[in-house]
This record gives sequence, C-alpha cells and structure tokens, in this order.
Amino acid sequence: MPARDETSTEQRLIARYFRPLATAPGAFGLEDDAAIVTPPPDCDLVLTTDGVIAGVHFFPDDPPQAIGRKALRMNLSDLAAKGAKPLGFLMSIALPAATDEAWIAAFAAGLGDDAAHYGCPLLGGDTDHTPGPLSVSIAAFGVVPHGAMVRRATAKAGDSVVVTGTVGDAALGVLLRRDAGLAKRWRLSETFSADLNDRYLLPQPRNALAAAVLTHGSAAMDVSDGLAGDLAKLCRASSVAAEIDVARVPLSDAARAALAADPALIEPILSGGDDYEIVLTIAPPKLGAFRAAAKKAGVAVTEIGRVTAGQGARIVHDGKALSFARPSYSHF
Amino acid sequence: MPARDETSTEQRLIARYFRPLATAPGAFGLEDDAAIVTPPPDCDLVLTTDGVIAGVHFFPDDPPQAIGRKALRMNLSDLAAKGAKPLGFLMSIALPAATDEAWIAAFAAGLGDDAAHYGCPLLGGDTDHTPGPLSVSIAAFGVVPHGAMVRRATAKAGDSVVVTGTVGDAALGVLLRRDAGLAKRWRLSETFSADLNDRYLLPQPRNALAAAVLTHGSAAMDVSDGLAGDLAKLCRASSVAAEIDVARVPLSDAARAALAADPALIEPILSGGDDYEIVLTIAPPKLGAFRAAAKKAGVAVTEIGRVTAGQGARIVHDGKALSFARPSYSHF
Repeated sequence: MPARDETSTEQRLIARYFRPLATAPGAFGLEDDAAIVTPPPDCDLVLTTDGVIAGVHFFPDDPPQAIGRKALRMNLSDLAAKGAKPLGFLMSIALPAATDEAWIAAFAAGLGDDAAHYGCPLLGGDTDHTPGPLSVSIAAFGVVPHGAMVRRATAKAGDSVVVTGTVGDAALGVLLRRDAGLAKRWRLSETFSADLNDRYLLPQPRNALAAAVLTHGSAAMDVSDGLAGDLAKLCRASSVAAEIDVARVPLSDAARAALAADPALIEPILSGGDDYEIVLTIAPPKLGAFRAAAKKAGVAVTEIGRVTAGQGARIVHDGKALSFARPSYSHF
Repeated sequence: MPARDETSTEQRLIARYFRPLATAPGAFGLEDDAAIVTPPPDCDLVLTTDGVIAGVHFFPDDPPQAIGRKALRMNLSDLAAKGAKPLGFLMSIALPAATDEAWIAAFAAGLGDDAAHYGCPLLGGDTDHTPGPLSVSIAAFGVVPHGAMVRRATAKAGDSVVVTGTVGDAALGVLLRRDAGLAKRWRLSETFSADLNDRYLLPQPRNALAAAVLTHGSAAMDVSDGLAGDLAKLCRASSVAAEIDVARVPLSDAARAALAADPALIEPILSGGDDYEIVLTIAPPKLGAFRAAAKKAGVAVTEIGRVTAGQGARIVHDGKALSFARPSYSHF
C-alpha cells in the first residue's frame, strides 16, 4: 500500500495538468466523484476501452507527448470505425514512483492537443502510483443515431472491401525501432525511416471519415491487430468470406520501398498490427458516394477486394492464397 | 512487445470467462469494437472510473473472486453516492504472464456475481499481458434524471451531515492483514478479526440507497479516502465548513472493540480509507423522509454533524478538535 501524504501531490498534479483538459461542463473540473454527459435525443452512446502499457504497447523512452495521444487515438479509431462522433473520455493512469513532473506535463500537453483536435474532452480519471510499468487505460464515448452503429457482423456477400489510408507502416516502424540496422537493409532513406517510425508512434485515426462510414458502410472495424486477422474476424462475425488482392492493398512509399528490398515483409505489413485504419464493407451501389465523401474528408480509401459467401478471409498474391503463421496480433 | 500466437488464447479466455458477463444486448457478446447503451429519455449518463493494482490496492494473494468484485464495487460506490442507477461497465485488465486460467475463472465468477446482483453488466473490455503487477481498471456508467446528479459542491450551511454504514473497518482490516499479531493486541475475537478483514476485502457499496440520496441529498460523495479528508473535500467544493462529533461516528462492534484496546486507532478509523460508504448532507426538513427511505432500503444511516458557514471540516472529540498528520489517503 502506498504512503499517504499530508498535502496531496495527486490533487496538485491533477489540478495543474489534467484539469485544463476537462473542458466539458459535465466534467465538473475533475472535482466530483463522477462526470455526466447528456446524450442527444434519439442517440445511442458508443463505448470502447483500450490502453497502453510501457514495454508492451510503447517503448518506455518514447516521447511522453506521444504516449497519451496514442492511448486516446486507439480509442478514437474504434469510435471512427463505428461511425460515432466523440463525446469524451475517462482515463486511468498508473505512474511509477520515479515519474517526474516534466514527464507528466509533456504527457498531458500531447493528450490535451488531441482532446481539443478531435473534440473529445477528458471527463474524469483515476491516478495511482504503481510498482510496475507506466500504463494508461482510456474509456472513450461517442454518439450515433439510435440503432445506427456500424457493426462487424453485418457484411453481405457482394459488398466491396475497402480500407482507409495505408497498411503496415506501424508494424515496420516497430521493427525499425527495435533494430535501427534494418533501415540500411531495407535501403530506406532517412525520410522513409522517419515516416514509418511516426506511424508507429502516432496512429492517425480516421475520425474525419466517421460520418461517411455511418452513411455508407455495411460493416466496419478498426484495423489494430493486422489487416489479415482483423478482416478474418469481420468475416467470422458476419458469417461471410472475403478475398482481397495484395496488389491492391494501399502501401505508403516507405513501406513499398522496404517491401521491394525484402519481400518477406509482406507478412508484418498484413498481420503486424497498430494500423488504426478502418476496414469496411460497402454495397457496390454506395461505393461512388462513399468515395466522394472520403475525398471531401481528405482520407484516402482503396477498394481491396470483395465479400463472398463462405468463410475465411483469403489474401491473394499473384493468384496464390497467402497464409501466415500468425494472421493476427494477439496480446497473449 | 508480447509474443503473437497462432490461435488466440486471448479470444478463447474472453469467450469462456467474460462473455457470460456481457448480458446486455448492446455488448454484442464482446464481439465488436465497441458497445452501445441507449440512454433513457431525459436522463444524464453518470461516468466514473477507478481501478486496482496488485500490491497497491489489494494483496496479490487475495482471493481472485474478491478482486474483480472490489474493482467493480469501488465504481458502484461512486454511482451510489451520485444517486445514479447502474447501467454497465467497461473493464481493462492487465495480467502477468504467470496468471493461470483457474485464477481468471475465479476472478470472472466473482465479478459476474456482482454484475448480476447490482444490475451492472459488462459492456466491453481490453485484455493485455503485463510485465508488471496485475491490474484492473473499470469505467462504470449509470443514469440519473437530467440535471439531478448529486454533486459534492452543493452542501448548504445548516444541512445535517449523514454517513451510511460504519466507518473505519476496512482501514483496520488492512492493518490486520499486514500484521496478524495486531488481533491479539486489539483483543479481537476471531469473528471480529474476520469482520474487519471482510470489509477490507469486499466493500459494501450503498447502491440500495441511491434513489434516497438522489431525492433527499443536498450534496454527497463516496468515502473512499477516509471520512475526515473526504468530508474536507466536500466542504472545500461547497465553500462551507462542517463539524462532526467523533462520538456519533458509527462504528462496527469490531472497530469499537479495537478502539477500546487502542484509542490511537481513531486516526486510521477516520482517515484510513477504503470505506466505500456515502457521506451526504441533507436539509433538516428532509431528514425524516431520508431516514424512512434508508430503513426501507436496509441501510443504516447516522447523523454525525452539521454544515456551517466558513471552511474546513472540524472533527470534535470530547469537545476538542482532532487533527491528523494525514487527514486523507493519497495515492502519492
């Protein structure tokens, strides 16, 4: 059990660094046991939770500005994939005793920038010291019209499979972060190395596309554990199959360069995780309107395959089905 | 970064032990990125988060059945103090690699009993392995009529100060848990020792009283960091003072016996934390109706003092104001 302290350092840190993020009136300046949100009429609240642990989801020496943003963005990505507009979030943070105030200040600054940018204010939290690694757990809330949340389980045979942004960058970024020598083996420019590292450090959740997903998607999920495995989960939930063509999977210039140097990288690219893109299925008549909405939102979208009857997600490369030893990132 | 696994142990454990707790239709059997709740019309959602870390909030060898229940009850206590009816919860759990399946089964069984008993189903979660201690973070949701949440900041001079149940048992329970020899020094029977230990292991949140708090309370908070410090927080938030009489603070027979053997125990009793009772203020004309409602709900309530103009919470013992080195439990 931790020591108790006469003047509460906990309260001082919360007031100084986290209260400025609690901009919603229902957060009561973090000075009550609980927060309130008043849901708009005829809406459902969409609830999700995800967290990060030092040494598991990020490197302990990652910049503190990035760590809070990453934890929030993982949750924002879930909301985006469900077509939900963010309302706010709760945060539990466990800090090792050695965490200094400068770390907390930088962490809160990064988190605050994102809370403002994505319209997702801090509603409440819980701060503890831990004998273990630093960890941040976030529960985020959004709204959708009643009954309209875009589910995983509602893809139909004949739908197109679409993915946002580019796939595999963060997985390559982690490999580079662990072994800087890979940059040379992959013949990457400094810019390309930095691109991949940035995608690992800071997910780019597609909240700008949430309204279009809500309007046009037949099913959707966020790609956090690798495209191959996540698409397989969507197919299983929907009792359908899908076939995607590796040649159509959108890759960044950096990932394309690395893949040219080492073709085996197709496996981490498609199954490595941490993409925080959206994979969704769309009935073909809606595809044009979805593309137009995505263009307006400034988010690249690519049709990569088709939903069919049957089961399983087939990843086809030069006419042959790929199979991976580990199709999906798992935390166990 | 953790190992990836061909067949996802994570998904199997979730399906086996946690899916049975996800009884709300909006949890989608834990098979989507997010859950939904449909708030009743004209209601506010009340949101709170609290968690436990092994070695900080519980002893690593505490029975697993109790650990999940404690984490949930800490949050239920916040909802009760705000007058809210539980809707459900999200849970993030970080498990050391050595956690065996029997532990998880027992943990989930305890948690499931409480989720059913308190009408607070699991809505979603996040499961990870951690190189650190086991930790459980819960975000819980409840509802109150729009604008009706009972706040900390609304106590008025002249109100009575009321507390539920008994105070100090859990704080004595922790001391006993750390040093079993104290039972002899405190001349406790085995039953009394067990009573105090049980109150530490399993908080008794006062959700049966939530409707009465909502109807009659002018301000309220849950007592989790010690009555003395928590009442001081309520006074600060409300810009009022309060005076409570130690002789009127409700003690269990076990705590009374320990205190008789060692009068210095008044300090941990009033400032030790982990009570999970409610301290509330009530305008005197409403006190009778509140007592009647509490009796009907089967929850003991005791008037312990009065709100006055000024600032600070005075704890008066035999006519003299007590002051504690550490009036409130702090995690720092």
